[in-house]
Amino acid sequence: MSPHALDDFFAVIPAGGVGSRLWPLSRAGRPKFLRDIAGTGATLLRSTYERLEPLCDASRVVVVTGQAHGDEVRAQLPEVTTENVVLESEGRDSSAAIGLAAAIIERRHPGAVIGSFAADHLISANARFRRAVTEAVRAAREGLIVTIGIQPLEPSTAFGYIRAGEPLEILGAPSARQVEAFVEKPKAATARRYLASGEYLWNAGMFIARASRLLEELAAHAPELAAGINEIADAWDTPQRDEVTARVWPTLEKIAIDYTVAEPAAKKGALAVIPGFFGWDDVGDFAAVSRVHATASSNEHPLDIIGDADRVVSYEAGGIVVSETDRIIAVAGVPDIVVVDTEDALLVTTRAKAQQVKNLVAAIKESEHPEVL
Amino acid sequence: MSPHALDDFFAVIPAGGVGSRLWPLSRAGRPKFLRDIAGTGATLLRSTYERLEPLCDASRVVVVTGQAHGDEVRAQLPEVTTENVVLESEGRDSSAAIGLAAAIIERRHPGAVIGSFAADHLISANARFRRAVTEAVRAAREGLIVTIGIQPLEPSTAFGYIRAGEPLEILGAPSARQVEAFVEKPKAATARRYLASGEYLWNAGMFIARASRLLEELAAHAPELAAGINEIADAWDTPQRDEVTARVWPTLEKIAIDYTVAEPAAKKGALAVIPGFFGWDDVGDFAAVSRVHATASSNEHPLDIIGDADRVVSYEAGGIVVSETDRIIAVAGVPDIVVVDTEDALLVTTRAKAQQVKNLVAAIKESEHPEVL
Repeated sequence: MSPHALDDFFAVIPAGGVGSRLWPLSRAGRPKFLRDIAGTGATLLRSTYERLEPLCDASRVVVVTGQAHGDEVRAQLPEVTTENVVLESEGRDSSAAIGLAAAIIERRHPGAVIGSFAADHLISANARFRRAVTEAVRAAREGLIVTIGIQPLEPSTAFGYIRAGEPLEILGAPSARQVEAFVEKPKAATARRYLASGEYLWNAGMFIARASRLLEELAAHAPELAAGINEIADAWDTPQRDEVTARVWPTLEKIAIDYTVAEPAAKKGALAVIPGFFGWDDVGDFAAVSRVHATASSNEHPLDIIGDADRVVSYEAGGIVVSETDRIIAVAGVPDIVVVDTEDALLVTTRAKAQQVKNLVAAIKESEHPEVL
Repeated sequence: MSPHALDDFFAVIPAGGVGSRLWPLSRAGRPKFLRDIAGTGATLLRSTYERLEPLCDASRVVVVTGQAHGDEVRAQLPEVTTENVVLESEGRDSSAAIGLAAAIIERRHPGAVIGSFAADHLISANARFRRAVTEAVRAAREGLIVTIGIQPLEPSTAFGYIRAGEPLEILGAPSARQVEAFVEKPKAATARRYLASGEYLWNAGMFIARASRLLEELAAHAPELAAGINEIADAWDTPQRDEVTARVWPTLEKIAIDYTVAEPAAKKGALAVIPGFFGWDDVGDFAAVSRVHATASSNEHPLDIIGDADRVVSYEAGGIVVSETDRIIAVAGVPDIVVVDTEDALLVTTRAKAQQVKNLVAAIKESEHPEVL
């Protein structure tokens, strides 16, 4: 195999998570990854797929998603065959989702390198993204667990960070560095210090590794989970798939892959990071939607409008209006507002308080109208 | 006639004005006075009528309104006969509206006292209101122009004020005082001074006078307008009504009665004021709607809800939500918000900026969707 080819590389796209801080745009029945949240003209899932396609054709893309979204995912990704869409009867978090995909791929293609990329993140400069992935795959072939950390453009307090250590001097992966630590979302002053130091990258939750290495880490740090995954994977391409999956899957521990693979690997010096010099956002709340929309539209209008701007009238107003109905929306005297107008639900908040939408969602769950979630 | 009877008293209810700062609740086709803006269970027009009914039966109530609202006004006030509903082909302001009503009443009932009461104000303590009107009628019989000024409960900057002077010592109207001056809406510090002095009353735009006295003032200060009104009134109860009205009415000067009657009368010491000890609000904007609603509901919840409260979910939110649709409305992280959700239009502003709604209405007039006004 040529060192430039990525024939051994498989992309795993976990397409889960409701994105409840993006309610009422993101709903249980139509979650964030099935929406064109950023107004790019494509759903986040489709964009994720198209970004990866030049690296691995459709036969090497595996999507893990909920049973309820299977039809919509297949409609969005007609190139991906049914055997490469793994349907979960219920969400068991990222260790189970990515672990099962890794185990299935390893059985079908021993020695494969997999990369996991969330279906609901927004990335610009796709060529730079692929350059980083290519380096990551080469480092992964050396037996490392590899992540891609985003070079910060501002002292964001919305993301976790990765502290990068010494260069690793890997052939074909010149920018690979040791990961010293993961750090939680910082306060503003700390975030400014991180940015100034040049040693911190945003944690975008991307992991690249040989499937077998990832499963080794999982076996070491979550042995019951790993055993369950292997039991399902053994049955996957056999007539026993449904029976075994139905029995084992619901018993798997719900735990993020950060805790079962990434952090343990970092602790023993087996985690590498490739700095990524591309725009990235997890579009986690409406402040992020406003942020990515403002970047995309490159205008300085204080009120961003997603939808038909002819039906929005404003006076001394800033923030973001998302219009999904044909109603007139009039906004006055609000310097930082979020208005999301959908057929059956209306949200009003501010970018500064956009995280509080999760409290509203919790309240609606307990209300007489949980059907709008 | 017994001094306690008010058989010579006629109520004039000018029912005009769109209430554009209350858009999208108040619309051109369904203005404020035809709405239950305060959530009392009755339209403001109906409430105005019922408040006056114990003083003068339906045969002595004259409503002046736009042709477009004639049917709705008659539906709201079935007791009022067609001959007592004066329809304007176009709005010509309060001097023309009240002046024409006065001239018609004077011809039908020479010597009548009329009182003019806007159709779109909110009043509580109706018995106290009627006590004040009764005193005002008695003072009017003495040849005075009389207004009712509201005893302020707080240093409001939303209303104009009346500076009260010496007691007038009129038999049957013991609280009547001379009006020294009208003053414009004050700044906060001035309003506090007014309140502390005890000499200032809110100008509620209520005027009581003999019809003939009012027409005299009008003739003195707006002679062309008065001549036009008299020409129409002469023809009113004849077959020439439509021809004369169509020719003369559109030529009448548009001017508020404050300038043609009240202020000139005040200047020459012919204006009396009766202090009114009742709740009053002109419900001019959504800050006022919130104010009167909070008073009515007597609860301290920071978010007032007009509409189905079961469909409103809030977190750290204050202000007012008006819901006319069956959508879920979710509001978070906004300490002072106004949300008005109607079928074809949505308004978001704050109580502090509620006056800016008129700027939105102006913008919508110029937009592609003036039909929502």
